[in-house]
Amino acid sequence: MSTTTNAPTVDDLASALEALRARVPLVQSLTNIVSANFLTNVLLAAGASNAHIDNAHEAGEFARIAGGVLINLGTPDDGTAVAFTRAAEAAHEAGTPWVLDPVGVGGLSWRTGLAADLLKFRPTAVRGNASEIIALAGLGGDTRGVDSADEAAAAVPAALALLEHADVVSASGPVDYLVGRDRDGHLTGLRIAGGSAMLPRVTSTGCSLGGLVAAYLAVAPTPLIGLAAAHAHVAVAAEIAEENSTGPGSFAVAYLDALFTVDAATLRARARIDTLDLPTKDAH
Amino acid sequence: MSTTTNAPTVDDLASALEALRARVPLVQSLTNIVSANFLTNVLLAAGASNAHIDNAHEAGEFARIAGGVLINLGTPDDGTAVAFTRAAEAAHEAGTPWVLDPVGVGGLSWRTGLAADLLKFRPTAVRGNASEIIALAGLGGDTRGVDSADEAAAAVPAALALLEHADVVSASGPVDYLVGRDRDGHLTGLRIAGGSAMLPRVTSTGCSLGGLVAAYLAVAPTPLIGLAAAHAHVAVAAEIAEENSTGPGSFAVAYLDALFTVDAATLRARARIDTLDLPTKDAH
Amino acid sequence: MSTTTNAPTVDDLASALEALRARVPLVQSLTNIVSANFLTNVLLAAGASNAHIDNAHEAGEFARIAGGVLINLGTPDDGTAVAFTRAAEAAHEAGTPWVLDPVGVGGLSWRTGLAADLLKFRPTAVRGNASEIIALAGLGGDTRGVDSADEAAAAVPAALALLEHADVVSASGPVDYLVGRDRDGHLTGLRIAGGSAMLPRVTSTGCSLGGLVAAYLAVAPTPLIGLAAAHAHVAVAAEIAEENSTGPGSFAVAYLDALFTVDAATLRARARIDTLDLPTKDAH
Repeated sequence: MSTTTNAPTVDDLASALEALRARVPLVQSLTNIVSANFLTNVLLAAGASNAHIDNAHEAGEFARIAGGVLINLGTPDDGTAVAFTRAAEAAHEAGTPWVLDPVGVGGLSWRTGLAADLLKFRPTAVRGNASEIIALAGLGGDTRGVDSADEAAAAVPAALALLEHADVVSASGPVDYLVGRDRDGHLTGLRIAGGSAMLPRVTSTGCSLGGLVAAYLAVAPTPLIGLAAAHAHVAVAAEIAEENSTGPGSFAVAYLDALFTVDAATLRARARIDTLDLPTKDAH
Repeated sequence: MSTTTNAPTVDDLASALEALRARVPLVQSLTNIVSANFLTNVLLAAGASNAHIDNAHEAGEFARIAGGVLINLGTPDDGTAVAFTRAAEAAHEAGTPWVLDPVGVGGLSWRTGLAADLLKFRPTAVRGNASEIIALAGLGGDTRGVDSADEAAAAVPAALALLEHADVVSASGPVDYLVGRDRDGHLTGLRIAGGSAMLPRVTSTGCSLGGLVAAYLAVAPTPLIGLAAAHAHVAVAAEIAEENSTGPGSFAVAYLDALFTVDAATLRARARIDTLDLPTKDAH
Repeated sequence: MSTTTNAPTVDDLASALEALRARVPLVQSLTNIVSANFLTNVLLAAGASNAHIDNAHEAGEFARIAGGVLINLGTPDDGTAVAFTRAAEAAHEAGTPWVLDPVGVGGLSWRTGLAADLLKFRPTAVRGNASEIIALAGLGGDTRGVDSADEAAAAVPAALALLEHADVVSASGPVDYLVGRDRDGHLTGLRIAGGSAMLPRVTSTGCSLGGLVAAYLAVAPTPLIGLAAAHAHVAVAAEIAEENSTGPGSFAVAYLDALFTVDAATLRARARIDTLDLPTKDAH
């Protein structure tokens, strides 16, 4: 059974969207060369702004003044790896919410070490796909062979384990799974449906969701509401985009348009969020 | 009162566009990882070509043969910072027109130093937003609180001060402000209206304007005509794109199409340029 | 006269496309910051997947497990240059097919040296434009002044010379020219028509073709069939995209949609491939 009685509601998500539009938070992104452009367009379309400050000289300086920080491990090199550490450390010290997107962790050894080091600075949120969340939690495991519809669900135990290192954790999939704490501090699991089968056909849709999480963390009353609002905004926009496209090229265009046009009323009408039964500690 | 009696006209801009299409200048860009793709597509759509040569080994070599060079400070690192200097130095020596786009200058200390160093190689043009132009001119100041419609106007004194270091300077905003010298060598200010409220919702529209300035400088009879033609081409294309789009995704697509379809006749019919009363030195 | 009697047919290309869709090969790309996003979208739309692993720590590790590797010299720096070597060496050792795209070789000295070094690891395929293929073959020459319609044809002798270092070689142009060996080991030249005059107006269409070659090499029965299938898939998709667009922005969107919707039947109906009379060795 769920341990929450005060989980985020669609009204909470709608209010977070209104706060995003009203405050236009500035996200600092340290991301990969594949997603940098699309991620910025996603943030601008959704209602935030973005500065891509990823050099070692300035990354820490900027993390102290940004509204939120995204660190994405997609294409690290020796220079950006230093910048990641400085941004994470500065964000942690300054109380800037920050997101770790552990792209490729598990399958590649160097970045797996980088990710482990970054966890020391306690990300506000960790967002990845199931295999990355499982690898980051050190639970070994392997999601190959897992039915894809349940892939993200298989990462829930790992996501819960990562709550030792982060306030909230999500695993993206056909249905997204999120864990964190409700307003009363109770452990809470959420499931957010929607999206589109076209999302995996457009690169950087996952990476840009990580950036949007950073934006919502800057304006939401709790990390879990911020995380859920970002996931729901994306899921609803993707549904709408699928209705207005004929392939991955036109989907990407319609997706940016939809991120822009979705408003609080759209979220209230279309967001599909429900709570998740979590294993209780007592049951172990 | 304006000190010019021979300011660029829409006919000058239309002729510059025809020269661009006839000569297809090759721009060397050293730009950031957010804008690299979109900037290249803007140049190809508008009628120029682009080579992104930003490593320290080749940047100077290529700046000697390029038609124009863009140096954009969006995402510098230790390697590209060296390449910036070599490209600027080589362009200066070889007489290749070059553009400095001081992204983030003022707000970030390391790149502010890089920009100051690059001014020594006398850029042909400096293009930025108001706060960047003000910061680069070392006029202190702060554009926060300035009414956004007048934001770029507030940068005119700074732009004039920068004419010590560059032939022409522009500050982008809802209306763009440009300063330089007319064909007779008289100080001239221009105001270019148009554009779209959707431009700030698509990343790299400003950065790619910097690239287009480099392309026009390669073919225009004077730097001020080249700068004005680039701003007008973009402003007219953005107006047309807004008429053909429903959000930032479709706007970006329509914008590239419009940069391609705008011709001399379109510029003559739609460009909105007028001269600007400049503070006379005597008045000080 | 052609030396082949068993050249790839449209049925071979259609089968390769079906194999691509069935097996979804994972390409490792080491490419430039201009093309990284578009190349990944091309691969995802066409039916492959992509991981951009271009740091020196991980490039070799990943090349041993990838389905195919693309090394593109568009924007090298000291770090990625090391990664290129490690990826090429590991791919060569592990038997992973890999593609060299020698962007800018000939015109720029540093990368011309890099390309020569990479040839030692015997790329499965080399894909470039005519001047790059000619420069890489060390045949001096200069394609400037060559009628553009025949540009790629002018590179055929250079492409043949490069077969000492690679299994298959192609030169892209309005019509593409490919050389390699048929199933019987006989020297074979192919010409693939189609495409669109809009392709050179959209950046990274050539670079992303290089990535698609790597994907097809992972699933095709011979390198020449893989190379030809990638060229034909792109040529047919570009033709369809031109019918559905009004400028370079909408062309790029329609191109991604068409790469996705083209299937074996479309290839059979529209691919335009014929064999090429090659100079026989005896004739020398």
